[in-house]
Parts: sequence; structure tokens; C-alpha cells
Amino acid sequence: MLKGVNASEGIGIGKVMLIEEVSLDYEKKQITDTQAEIDRYRKVFDAYCEKTEKQAENIKNTIGEKEADIILGHLLMLKDPAMSSSIEGNISSGCCAEDAVAQVCDMFIGVFSMADDELTKQRASDVEDIKNGLITMLLGKEEVDIASAPSGTVLVAKDLTPSMTSCIVKENIVGIVTEVGGKTSHSAILARAMEIPAVLSVPNVMETFENGQEIIVDGSHGEVIENPSDGEIAIYREKTIEYKKEKEELKKFIGKETVTADGVKVELCCNIGKPDDADAVLSKDGEGVGLFRTEFLYMDSSSIPTEEEQFEAYKKTVLKLGDKPLIIRTLDVGGDKDIPYLGLSKEDNPFMGFRAVRYCLHREDVYKPQLRALLRASAFGNIKIMIPLVTCIDEVREVKAMIENIKAELDSENIAYNKDIQVGVMVETPAASLIADLLAEEADFFSIGTNDLTGYTMAVDRGNADVAYLYSAFQPAVLRSIKKIIEDGKDIMVGMCGEAAADPLLIPLLLAFGLDEFSVSATSVLKTRKIISQWTIDEAKEVANKALTLKTESEVVEYLTSVAK
Amino acid sequence: MLKGVNASEGIGIGKVMLIEEVSLDYEKKQITDTQAEIDRYRKVFDAYCEKTEKQAENIKNTIGEKEADIILGHLLMLKDPAMSSSIEGNISSGCCAEDAVAQVCDMFIGVFSMADDELTKQRASDVEDIKNGLITMLLGKEEVDIASAPSGTVLVAKDLTPSMTSCIVKENIVGIVTEVGGKTSHSAILARAMEIPAVLSVPNVMETFENGQEIIVDGSHGEVIENPSDGEIAIYREKTIEYKKEKEELKKFIGKETVTADGVKVELCCNIGKPDDADAVLSKDGEGVGLFRTEFLYMDSSSIPTEEEQFEAYKKTVLKLGDKPLIIRTLDVGGDKDIPYLGLSKEDNPFMGFRAVRYCLHREDVYKPQLRALLRASAFGNIKIMIPLVTCIDEVREVKAMIENIKAELDSENIAYNKDIQVGVMVETPAASLIADLLAEEADFFSIGTNDLTGYTMAVDRGNADVAYLYSAFQPAVLRSIKKIIEDGKDIMVGMCGEAAADPLLIPLLLAFGLDEFSVSATSVLKTRKIISQWTIDEAKEVANKALTLKTESEVVEYLTSVAK
Repeated sequence: MLKGVNASEGIGIGKVMLIEEVSLDYEKKQITDTQAEIDRYRKVFDAYCEKTEKQAENIKNTIGEKEADIILGHLLMLKDPAMSSSIEGNISSGCCAEDAVAQVCDMFIGVFSMADDELTKQRASDVEDIKNGLITMLLGKEEVDIASAPSGTVLVAKDLTPSMTSCIVKENIVGIVTEVGGKTSHSAILARAMEIPAVLSVPNVMETFENGQEIIVDGSHGEVIENPSDGEIAIYREKTIEYKKEKEELKKFIGKETVTADGVKVELCCNIGKPDDADAVLSKDGEGVGLFRTEFLYMDSSSIPTEEEQFEAYKKTVLKLGDKPLIIRTLDVGGDKDIPYLGLSKEDNPFMGFRAVRYCLHREDVYKPQLRALLRASAFGNIKIMIPLVTCIDEVREVKAMIENIKAELDSENIAYNKDIQVGVMVETPAASLIADLLAEEADFFSIGTNDLTGYTMAVDRGNADVAYLYSAFQPAVLRSIKKIIEDGKDIMVGMCGEAAADPLLIPLLLAFGLDEFSVSATSVLKTRKIISQWTIDEAKEVANKALTLKTESEVVEYLTSVAK
Repeated sequence: MLKGVNASEGIGIGKVMLIEEVSLDYEKKQITDTQAEIDRYRKVFDAYCEKTEKQAENIKNTIGEKEADIILGHLLMLKDPAMSSSIEGNISSGCCAEDAVAQVCDMFIGVFSMADDELTKQRASDVEDIKNGLITMLLGKEEVDIASAPSGTVLVAKDLTPSMTSCIVKENIVGIVTEVGGKTSHSAILARAMEIPAVLSVPNVMETFENGQEIIVDGSHGEVIENPSDGEIAIYREKTIEYKKEKEELKKFIGKETVTADGVKVELCCNIGKPDDADAVLSKDGEGVGLFRTEFLYMDSSSIPTEEEQFEAYKKTVLKLGDKPLIIRTLDVGGDKDIPYLGLSKEDNPFMGFRAVRYCLHREDVYKPQLRALLRASAFGNIKIMIPLVTCIDEVREVKAMIENIKAELDSENIAYNKDIQVGVMVETPAASLIADLLAEEADFFSIGTNDLTGYTMAVDRGNADVAYLYSAFQPAVLRSIKKIIEDGKDIMVGMCGEAAADPLLIPLLLAFGLDEFSVSATSVLKTRKIISQWTIDEAKEVANKALTLKTESEVVEYLTSVAK
């Protein structure tokens, strides 16, 4: 059994297809008919551009616009006169096209590689991609045809490049194994987006596996089993069946209230990112939306989304939900998101930078259309507004003042809205936790964002693998902070919209502290409802009291695991 | 009066010297004797390299190694065969040297500028610098001779490039005014390093000022006064005198104890960064060192400093201090520091990354020599060890276990050390504040690092100008955190080594909370002692009680200003 990074969950059993890199060796020739060579280059150049544009289009449809943009970025670089005219210049002086491409690309690769920052180095590998693509086509070679992989294929490659991924036919690929990449790598994101089980960072895959060999990919545990015995295949088929059975059992909880074993009712909502996600909330039996992220409106647009566009999106979402609550978080972006028209700069520490409510309060041209759209949409259902990244009450007061001004405007324009619309605070910074009592006086509700709260409290970037060991909501410091926030918010509704709200180990503590609302991914609704149903408040309090006396994260996790239902 | 950014404090009154950019227009010529042209280029190339190396040497001596490295980086790029051979290739095909340089540089500038990240764009301006420097020399032109500026000169420029700064004779320049740059820009850092008053970001300076014109540069307030009247000059001369007088008055506090008005004694120490800084601690009458940063040992070295090198440095420092306490913080670096041999990677959010104690606990080869050196040096004076960036008690326990192991080693080697050496925690993360009661059981002392504590609590990178408005120790959240830490540490010594410890507005609150030790910059010792002497604990408590009822930072600052002594 080989261990790797569990990058995309699920189990795949299938036959290996090795994606070998094509040899790019070429013979250096002295060209005499340079015009003919330039013509040959231009033909390949045009074909390469066309192919790349098609790949981008394909990726945009199957995966997303952002991934497609990486590829289009390559094209832009290639079309730059600096690069293009240098290549043709080299051919004019007698180089063959392959060599001309290699020389110019290598020069850029050399200079980019000298840089000591990741982004510039990334550009070197972008140019490498262009060089390889062009030379492959100049040599008349073809890359392995992933598009024609038969049903039941496990792709095995050193790395998945965007151009490979664009050819994947999702139905035929049951697993992905690569030699490089971690949980946040391009390959991992793509595998999860396509729901293909994937194990990454497996050493020497190209030497280890053979074409046609049968393997099992356990993307949930980061394990790959070579040449599995019939017994192993049976075990994994069983696991897949169990996985499905558990899913079946959870169906008993459809349509039920979310109540503890002693009958205390809590609210169980979902986190969503697009209007259409509301369909999953309904089909998975969520009781509302505890977090609707609005970034999609900005990511998918090439200019500030208009009030009208936003209004339509919010209205569409709330109409799907009927009278169920819909908490909409206002724009939460920073310099780490690539949305050019928002004018955000790159920052050394974007998580501690000019983002979310900080940015919005300085950009009325961005924020006001959103708040107006939210108020207008509130006429059509139970919309609540949530402010992200709050650190002081001034921010809440300023947003509320803007909302009051907009209400007056809407009144004068005779436009309908919910006059009692609730405005809440996403509690996700240490500062907000420290002043939660003051914020509770200003806010109609809280929602604890455990992801960021944990990160800021522990001073850990959760995307950074080197410090992941410190990132845990079970750290005594984080548990104390969560408890304080819920207690300080006792007079208002307090929810939690981080991933921790669905954690079986944390749920008894949240019930003990008095959390009113759990907001989880749609796929976790039934499981969360089941776990909540297994605890009485008294039992939960006993567990919480004991857990809070423990001084280290590992003691806490060990204890909670021992009492888990 | 013109407003700008107060980048380096102090007042300068003097005459303007405009640093105009040289015109780089050249005539494009077709070269026939290309070998002669290549020779001309090579001569200039060599001269340029020589000049640049001298500039770097000069900057290294007057300002620092890091600044010198920027310049040497340019040179490295120019010497890269990719660039050099392209330039000579262009000349071979008939270009004049000026044009050959421009073409090749422009190609790189074009590609670098296309990038959407700051670091790659910075490279474009590095190449621009090289291009301008080479063409200037090829044209036989000279840049303004800053080195010969007469005494009493105010330099006025669009921007200060490193090559300009290397020519500054510190004694002759009384002020700097530039059109671009903020508090953290290159120009600002250089101005502060040279203690020259500077106002940056003043619009249209080259059009506004004339050579020889008299101006006043108020670097403390970010103001520039053109053509000052005799009255204004008198006022500013007066200000300069007052400034000096206040300094004189503070001398009364030399040799005195640090006590409140009602006789409560506290400790007043200094923050230092190098062994020789201990001289200033003594000359400015500090009572010890509350924070000795050890990064200098690593920054100034090209490999991991040996135990012996470190031992010598710590011993040298503690011997200077006699029996005064010396709190030494163990290595506090991360991916934002450029120390290649430590193997730290660039990170998206280095402040929340693999740094300080996190890094050290994973690198025994780095940490153990430091801890051994600290223990050995503890035989020569009152050394205490401080652990930075603690977020959980596991970290403190692990460091203490390492220290115990080293003690056993030293015992078996018959090497002397202080068996009762104190090990303390730098409390600077929200997590550490939340579990300060637990940490107090493990630590011999606390030192509150207000800079980072404020940053992490407010989720603000203090180097980021866009969010500087949120970065304040007077935020209610931060004040509460400080109070909690001091109270939780009531059974051990609690100090503060952030800049806030010298803030006249914060001092009464710190006295009220019960802070035991104030650690400030050596230049702030006497002023801090004076302010502490003006408060009784009862008065301070009254102020603190009132301040903690206030809900916003501006109310807190307004109130504390109104009661300041």
C-alpha cells in the first residue's frame, strides 16, 4: 500500500492509464529558407493558440472560469510582441523553429527562475508549458489522449496540467494518482470539483505503476493499493457499499426537526455559494441558509456587479427558499483574490489586510449597490444581512448607518423592503470575540466563523501545510473563545457557519454552550441532525465541563473521541 | 504649507537641491564597426559594474546589508548570460549600444510588467534602473552629484533610488522631500536610518521647488513650508530648541529609581537587537534588557551561527550589563525574512506561518545550538530565556524539555550554567492571551509583545498602510486582552516589550493593571520614567476603570488624552 495526500474523497477501483511526458528532443538544423520556416512556425503557432483556446473553453465549462484564465494567461504571454518577434527573429537568423522557440523561452525561464519569490517562479513554469506545447506540435507529436480513456480508468501522472485536465471525461475516470501536489494544488482542486477520488504526493508513480494494472485509490484516506488481491477488492467494494448504506440510513432524518435527545430544538442550516445551491439545501432538507457567500457575483464578473444583477441573484435565491431564513454575507474579498476591477493590491499578509468590511466601508461605489440590492430582495423572503471580519463596533455602526440611509432612499422611491431586516455580525476575529458583549448590543445575531476564528486566534494560515498541526478548533484557546462568544450573545441568536459546526466531536460542546443555529454543508445536514439527536443537554454539559479543564488539544480530542456517540 | 507623509522625524531648515532625472534620449545609429561598438559597450559595462559595486559597499556601511543587496541583485541580473549575450548579439547585428541595451531591457520590462503581482513588477523597475544607468553612462552623462551637496541641503527628488542614497553625506543633508513613497518605502527606511528628517508623498515636488530655495522640512508632522517667513523660521528654530530642552530636562531622571508618585517601584528595561546596543542601555540608564532579539546573529551570517559564535555574543552582552537582567528571545524568523540557509519558504501569509518557536521546534539543528549557547552564557550574568509566538502549552513544555536535556548534557560535560535560569513566554498571540492562566503555570515570566498582539487580535498587518487605522493598542479588544494577560500572570513577573510600553497614554492603564516591567527603546527610558513618576496607582486605576467602559478606540484615546499628565 502506498501513502499519499488524501486530496479528493471516495474510493475508486480501476485500471491504470499512465500519462507519460512526450520527449521533446529535436535536431538543431541550420535553416536556409527562413521564410518557409517562419510560415511553418506561424501555422503551428496558430494551431497552438486555437487548441489552447478550446482547452480554456472546455475547462471553463467543466471546472470554472478561474482555472480557464490560467491557460488564457499563457496565451497572452505568447502573443506578446516581445516574445513572438524574438522567436521569428531567431528563425530569420537561421535557427530552426524548435530551437528558436527553445532559445527565447529559455531566456525568459532563466530570468524568471532567478527570482526569489514564488509568483515569478510560477511564471517560469508557465513559459515552460508554452515551450513544451509549441515544440510538441512543431515535432508533430501528440500527447496521450486522455479524452479517449475507457470507463474505469485511473489516471496516473507526475502532475496534472490544466491542459490534461481539460480532456478528462468525468464519467470514465474513477481515480487520480500523482507524484506532486498537496491538498490545495491545482490537481486537488480539479479532482474535488469533478468528484474523482484522488491521492497526490505518491513517490515515483511513473516507475511504480504499469498501464492496465489494477489499483484501488482511497481518496478519503490517501492510500493507493497496487495489484489488490480479490479479498482487498471485496473489502473496498464493501466499504463503498457501507458508505452508501450509511447514506441510506440518514434518510430517516429527512423532514424531521433538529432536536436534542431531551427535546431542545436548534436550527440546522446550510452554507452556500451560488443561488442554485439553494436547490441542494431544499433537497438535503436544510432548514435555511446560515451563510450565503456573495463572492461568486464578483468572481464571475468583469466589472462591479450592478445593483440590478445582485438584486436578481438574491431574489432568485430567497424565492427558492420560501419563508426559510437566508443569511447573506456581504462581500468578503481581499488582495489574495484576483478580481482586477476591485482595485485590490497584492499584500504581504492578505489575511491581515484590506479586505471584507474594511474594503467595503472605503468603497461606497462597491458596497452601496450590494446593500441596496439586499434590502430590495428582502421584500421577497426572510433575508438577513451579515457583516464579515468585524473587529470593532464602529464598523457595525457604520454599516447600519449606511443601511438606514438606503432605507430612507428606498422609502422616497417607493421601493419595497423588509423594514425589520436583521443585521448580524460574523464573529471570526479575536477582537470580535473579546468584545462580543459590546457587539451583541449592536447586532441582531452572531454567526461564528470557526475557520477564520481558529486561524486568527492561533496565528495560523490554514492553507499552510507546515503549521496545519496547530490549526484546530479543539485548541483550548479556541474552545474558550467559542464559549465566550455564545455566552456573550445569549440575548440574540448565535449560529456557527464554519466547518466545525458539523464536527461530531464538537457538537456536544456547542449544544452545551447554547448554540442556536448550526450551518453546515448541504451534504452534512442529515448526519449533523442525527448526531444532535443523540445528545441530551445535561450529557453535553458534563462533557463540555470536563473538556474545558483539559490543557492541550490532544487531550481534548482524545477525551471527546472517547465519549463520542 | 505642503502636507506629506511623516517618514522620518525631526526638523530640517535648509536650501533645496533638486535631483533631476537625466535625459536619456539618444540617436539610433546603424553601426558598421560592430566590434568597436561591442568594445565600447564592454568598457561601459565594466565601469557600471564597478560603480554599482562601490555604491553597494557604501550603502552596506552607511545603511545596511539588506539595502546593499538590492543593488547587488541588479548586477547579478545584468551579468546573467541571457541578458548580456542578447545585448551584444543586438550590437553584432548593427544596433548602437544604447539601442541594444534599450531593446533587451525593454523586452524584459515588458514581460515583467505584464505580471499582476507586485514582486514581478518590482523586477521591471529593477531592469529600468539598469537600463537608465547603462544608457546614462553610454551617453557620457553624469547624474547630479549628491556627494558634493553643501552643508544645509534639503534633497528634493521624485524618488530616492538606492544609487542616489549611496552618495549622501549625512552631515550635509538636513532634510529629504520626495514625490513618491510611504512610511515603509525604501526612501523612508533610509531616511530614518540616517536620522534625516523626511516628508514623502508630496505632490509635484519637481515643479514646486527651485534649486537654492529655502524650505523647512517637518518630518515629525509631515509638513513642508516653502519660502518660510523670518517669523516661521524663528518658530521652527524655537521648536528645535524646545525639543532639545525637553531632552535636557529628562536628564534629571538619570540614576533615579522608576517609581510611581505613590512610591510603587516598577522595572524599566530596554529592547535591543545587537550586543553593542547594551552600551546604549547603560548610557541611557536602562535597568536591564527586557527584550534582546537574536535575529542579528542569523541575518549577518551565511550559515547557521555556531553554538560558539552565539555563546560569545550572549556572553559579551551579559558581561556589559553586570547583574542587570537580560531577557533573550530565541530565534523569531519566518518566510518573510530572507535568510536562505534556514530553508524557510515564501508563504502567502508569513505572519500566520511557519516561524519562531514553530520553526525552531522542528529544527533541532538550529534551535539546540542556540539553547546551549544561552545556557552556557547564563553562567556569566542574569540571562532569562523567552519563547516567541507561543499559542499552546505544548510548545512551552517542549522547549522546557529541550532545556532540561541540555542541562543534563552540560552537567555531564562539566560546563557551567545557571541551574535556576528562568524560561518565560512572549505573550503576543490571541491564543496565548486566552490561555494565559495555563501558560502562567508553565512560565517563569511573561512579556507582552503588544505589536504582534495588536496585529493578530485585530487581524491587521501593521506594515499595511490601508488598514493602519485599525492597528491600535487602544482598541477595546486589545486593552481587554492586555488586562487579562497581566491579571492571569499575577503570580509571576509580567513585562511588556512592545512599543506601547512607552506610550504616555497607555502607561496609567499598565500601572493600574499591575504591569511589573516596562521594556522600551533606550531613547525612551527617561521619558517613560518621568511619566511613571507622575501617576499614583489610585489615579491610574480610576483612569483605567473609566477607559474600560468606553466602547470605541477613538473614545478611549480622547479620554486618555484629556487626562494625560
